[in-house]
Amino acid sequence: MRALVLQEKNRMSIEEVEPVGSPGPGEVRIAMHTVGICASDVHYWTDGKIGPFVVEEPMVLGHEGSGTVVEVGEGVTDLSPGDRVAMEPGVPNPSSRAVREGNYNVDPDVQFWATPPVDGCLTDEVIHPASYTFKHPDSLSFAEGALIEPFSVGMFAATKAGIKPGDVAAVVGSGTIGIMTAIAARAGGASQVFISDVLPEKLALLDGLEGIIPVDATKEDLGERVRAETGGWGPQVVFEATGAAPAYKSLWSLPAPGGRIVLVGMPVDPVPFDIATAQSRGISLETVFRYANVYQKAIDLAATDAVDLSRFVSETFTFDNAVGAFERFLEGRPTDVKLQITL
Amino acid sequence: MRALVLQEKNRMSIEEVEPVGSPGPGEVRIAMHTVGICASDVHYWTDGKIGPFVVEEPMVLGHEGSGTVVEVGEGVTDLSPGDRVAMEPGVPNPSSRAVREGNYNVDPDVQFWATPPVDGCLTDEVIHPASYTFKHPDSLSFAEGALIEPFSVGMFAATKAGIKPGDVAAVVGSGTIGIMTAIAARAGGASQVFISDVLPEKLALLDGLEGIIPVDATKEDLGERVRAETGGWGPQVVFEATGAAPAYKSLWSLPAPGGRIVLVGMPVDPVPFDIATAQSRGISLETVFRYANVYQKAIDLAATDAVDLSRFVSETFTFDNAVGAFERFLEGRPTDVKLQITL
Amino acid sequence: MRALVLQEKNRMSIEEVEPVGSPGPGEVRIAMHTVGICASDVHYWTDGKIGPFVVEEPMVLGHEGSGTVVEVGEGVTDLSPGDRVAMEPGVPNPSSRAVREGNYNVDPDVQFWATPPVDGCLTDEVIHPASYTFKHPDSLSFAEGALIEPFSVGMFAATKAGIKPGDVAAVVGSGTIGIMTAIAARAGGASQVFISDVLPEKLALLDGLEGIIPVDATKEDLGERVRAETGGWGPQVVFEATGAAPAYKSLWSLPAPGGRIVLVGMPVDPVPFDIATAQSRGISLETVFRYANVYQKAIDLAATDAVDLSRFVSETFTFDNAVGAFERFLEGRPTDVKLQITL
Amino acid sequence: MRALVLQEKNRMSIEEVEPVGSPGPGEVRIAMHTVGICASDVHYWTDGKIGPFVVEEPMVLGHEGSGTVVEVGEGVTDLSPGDRVAMEPGVPNPSSRAVREGNYNVDPDVQFWATPPVDGCLTDEVIHPASYTFKHPDSLSFAEGALIEPFSVGMFAATKAGIKPGDVAAVVGSGTIGIMTAIAARAGGASQVFISDVLPEKLALLDGLEGIIPVDATKEDLGERVRAETGGWGPQVVFEATGAAPAYKSLWSLPAPGGRIVLVGMPVDPVPFDIATAQSRGISLETVFRYANVYQKAIDLAATDAVDLSRFVSETFTFDNAVGAFERFLEGRPTDVKLQITL
Repeated sequence: MRALVLQEKNRMSIEEVEPVGSPGPGEVRIAMHTVGICASDVHYWTDGKIGPFVVEEPMVLGHEGSGTVVEVGEGVTDLSPGDRVAMEPGVPNPSSRAVREGNYNVDPDVQFWATPPVDGCLTDEVIHPASYTFKHPDSLSFAEGALIEPFSVGMFAATKAGIKPGDVAAVVGSGTIGIMTAIAARAGGASQVFISDVLPEKLALLDGLEGIIPVDATKEDLGERVRAETGGWGPQVVFEATGAAPAYKSLWSLPAPGGRIVLVGMPVDPVPFDIATAQSRGISLETVFRYANVYQKAIDLAATDAVDLSRFVSETFTFDNAVGAFERFLEGRPTDVKLQITL
Repeated sequence: MRALVLQEKNRMSIEEVEPVGSPGPGEVRIAMHTVGICASDVHYWTDGKIGPFVVEEPMVLGHEGSGTVVEVGEGVTDLSPGDRVAMEPGVPNPSSRAVREGNYNVDPDVQFWATPPVDGCLTDEVIHPASYTFKHPDSLSFAEGALIEPFSVGMFAATKAGIKPGDVAAVVGSGTIGIMTAIAARAGGASQVFISDVLPEKLALLDGLEGIIPVDATKEDLGERVRAETGGWGPQVVFEATGAAPAYKSLWSLPAPGGRIVLVGMPVDPVPFDIATAQSRGISLETVFRYANVYQKAIDLAATDAVDLSRFVSETFTFDNAVGAFERFLEGRPTDVKLQITL
Repeated sequence: MRALVLQEKNRMSIEEVEPVGSPGPGEVRIAMHTVGICASDVHYWTDGKIGPFVVEEPMVLGHEGSGTVVEVGEGVTDLSPGDRVAMEPGVPNPSSRAVREGNYNVDPDVQFWATPPVDGCLTDEVIHPASYTFKHPDSLSFAEGALIEPFSVGMFAATKAGIKPGDVAAVVGSGTIGIMTAIAARAGGASQVFISDVLPEKLALLDGLEGIIPVDATKEDLGERVRAETGGWGPQVVFEATGAAPAYKSLWSLPAPGGRIVLVGMPVDPVPFDIATAQSRGISLETVFRYANVYQKAIDLAATDAVDLSRFVSETFTFDNAVGAFERFLEGRPTDVKLQITL
Repeated sequence: MRALVLQEKNRMSIEEVEPVGSPGPGEVRIAMHTVGICASDVHYWTDGKIGPFVVEEPMVLGHEGSGTVVEVGEGVTDLSPGDRVAMEPGVPNPSSRAVREGNYNVDPDVQFWATPPVDGCLTDEVIHPASYTFKHPDSLSFAEGALIEPFSVGMFAATKAGIKPGDVAAVVGSGTIGIMTAIAARAGGASQVFISDVLPEKLALLDGLEGIIPVDATKEDLGERVRAETGGWGPQVVFEATGAAPAYKSLWSLPAPGGRIVLVGMPVDPVPFDIATAQSRGISLETVFRYANVYQKAIDLAATDAVDLSRFVSETFTFDNAVGAFERFLEGRPTDVKLQITL
């Protein structure tokens, strides 16, 4: 069985590893088909760590995966060999208080693929709990199945936004997560989603998506634009999806009175928060960390005409050339949204 | 100035009435263009009353209207002569507690067009508060503008449902309100909306609407169908849109665990409520009465590709033949969704 | 080890049973101290079943228990031998979707003490998951610890009510659950809780509880009384706690505009639901089935001066006389709130 | 008729002003009895402005008032001469969108007493809309009536916190607003409210208030203390009530997983916001600006035993000595909570 193993910072290779064995009760064994790579995978490779998470022993990379069930453990009734599936990469301690309260994404004991010391899914086969393995229809390709993971971040952001049907939304930043959020917000009930970026190539990726309106931040102010198109009122929901310090300057006055800001981007350092402005507009704020209880819904929406994830696969690499995908990521091409590897 | 005046039960005619004069502060004068007719208009004509509301003096009918602003009163800054507008037919007492709490639809003092003794809008011109008059883009026809009223009932239902992006919804009954609710729920974030009826002609009206799945209630059970397509889980939100006693029998077990029922249909008599079943599934319920704070959002969604209201205009009558529209309504053709009159 | 075993309908006796052995990982062993008896225990005894739940083999009764931890299993860090604890009697399947969504009370696979075929806690010792075992301070007696179970029903009702600080509440029925709900609603933020009953002895049990106002339903109408004391507005939240058909007649018009009804009582048969009335007032409804995520909070509130559960222990029986407690329950004395048995 | 008029920065005097005349429709005339002074009144006096609000012509100060109705205008049915009342000092434009949506506190057109150029209530009589004038029982003194205004800020904070019955709360800062918030949170359903300050005199003001636990921030960390008393979990709701930059450093990690931070204090400059920490704990945030829809509830709770506002009146000044109250405020005595003036 092959796996893409990060030995330590800057040293990554395809290795032969031990087979996974048979699934235990409530588990399934999955033959991996497609795995997307994410900034975090790349950071572990180039830096050997992200914040408190340090690669101290060899670890398999990858957490955005799809594949086919090949064996089911005892008590698994809703999945069968042959099912095409997408997997939620984080598995909490099922007995934790956070799980019982419905917030399993913030369970301190969560085990998340390719977050040290937990192995990821860039390997031929994985064992995974059936409760975090989601069947998807044949109408979704494996590439789309692997995109369910980043799309779920957008879905969780859209869910936390509490979008009411017909609300106007604004998204700051059209990187991968900004795009996923914009699509989820639009399919999730917003009538219009204004999305800004400083790179015109990023905005061009959204061409032709009805209801999603690109705003070139080098030419016009996102807030002014949305207010101009909403009789001065502004967007009910605002998503910050850059995590870049400058974006926060004008963020707090962006929403309509009584509106909401959803913080999706994750800035490394604290950012200046203009509380008085947010207060005088009656703003509430939500934070997004991964996702909880949205994977099935992400699949269901992705299977409709309202969402087409396939257009965001920028290039697909063979497993033999997995390292090439990481190198391409480092090039930082503005037209790249998602790079994937097939096994 | 002409108006369709209901003199008393069963006696209705086009009359010459006093011009409306000039708009006061905060008001606008509107030249009516299109008015849809609704079951309540017809009931006042055939019965002279609905519940406690009795026609005791001549009253102008109609409350689903669109038109063009022709004059604005003092202090009106967001509307101008020439604007194409849709009007919210109910105007509350702005100083009431219900208004302050955001529930103006249940203000006991609300004045609602064509609800005795308040005159409606089947007339050449009306004066209306600017706050309840909504500009709509030229891309929406006047016919669509007049449909914003019934669509707003669906929008309010979808809003109260608290739909989360990707939720599965079920609608019981595909009459006009059921259809409006299904469309609002789908555009409002549901991935799939299953809608049932006993008349195949009603379901056929929804042919080709992606994400809306007709269920012939004479052939299959709505609940069984949705559970079959959701791995046994069921719909997160259920809308009751018939108001017909038999529909309530299987309603209480329809939602998924922790789901919600939204009661849109308005049954004349109390219906049997199986509380124990609802409790054991952790169901919550919302009731819908007209709408509040959704008119702008209804216009915004109707202006997108996600919603096409125009297909639901079944026939348009000239004002001279306004009575003909009411007669056609009484025929009860199953393929009729909305009949409209132009002025 | 002794246990109160229900052999079959009408046949119940204290038996010697197998010791429980040692707790597994994540479990604790508890020496039971006090167990309250509940209508459901009595029904199993007199009827041998409740709805679909039928006693088909001998079952230990009792689900309202408190005791002392005597042994902890592997991985249990927050409980130690000697801790005084109250136990949540229902344990869901930790991998179920209902649990992940925060609604573990409606997990179809929940195992609940003294619900056939699951043994209850009227026995010397039990093994229980640590996650459903809650330490309580020494300031709470074991009698109060055992009352946490019925109080949690009231707490869950008060939680689902979404009480805002200072809301006015009304409770229909001052049986045990009505009382628990009233206390939870008052301590949970209501400024005033009006509670009605037809038995003056029931209302007298609440004498001297500040902010809880008894209303003799044989002399005045609950709705009229609350409206009279709230300038005609009515209560924001209404709890139905009888489950008795007549109570539902005037229920739907009871809340203030935009208010909420919480259905705590569990009527055997469907009750008439006046939907039109509820709609015209903009009412929402919540249903209560046991509880989720409130046990710790119930203990925390019970430990404050705002709640005194001890006054509701009507009589305490020795384990030898356990059957006597059941016989006393059947007498149906109006002054009895809770009967308890000590081991 | 007398009034305390601020002529310009640093120049304030008691002046004879024009009588207010008769109330219009929906208005009442009130003889003022007690007015509390607030930091904003003092700032206008010492600085002549607060942010964008500049005193450009003479303005009557004071916005925390109680008094007696002496005349009612046309259409006022729920108030009568002789009624003891507290007045909400901010009156929005009743036709605004913010009002219709239930957020009247953030209506940009709100007219707020003693916010330039609107005259305040430190005068013998005022005219006020009946909808923003609240009768209070005789059991509340005029002093308590005037305290309803700052208490309403705490009530709004507690409302926005979405406290669930039995939640544990933490308040950072025990200035006047911190105290009002702590009391509202406790009466509003929290089982325990931990409140910190660096001045022991501030904390001493809360001695004897059951369920409110003072934490000396010079000796122990608020977060560590609450976690120690909640099995490591932390408070579900956290209120920031200082507006002082240092307080925000440890704020973002203070709540329990899935918890909420309510920003009540209004810092002059932006503060550093550690978004990544808030995200990893799944925190949501609410902002507080004045209040909406809580005045009646504040009165209702203040009239119960759960709240005693009278203990927070530190000293009462006669109107002749109104300036003395302002001078005393400037002394900044740590034991002063509220200074009031009687007319």
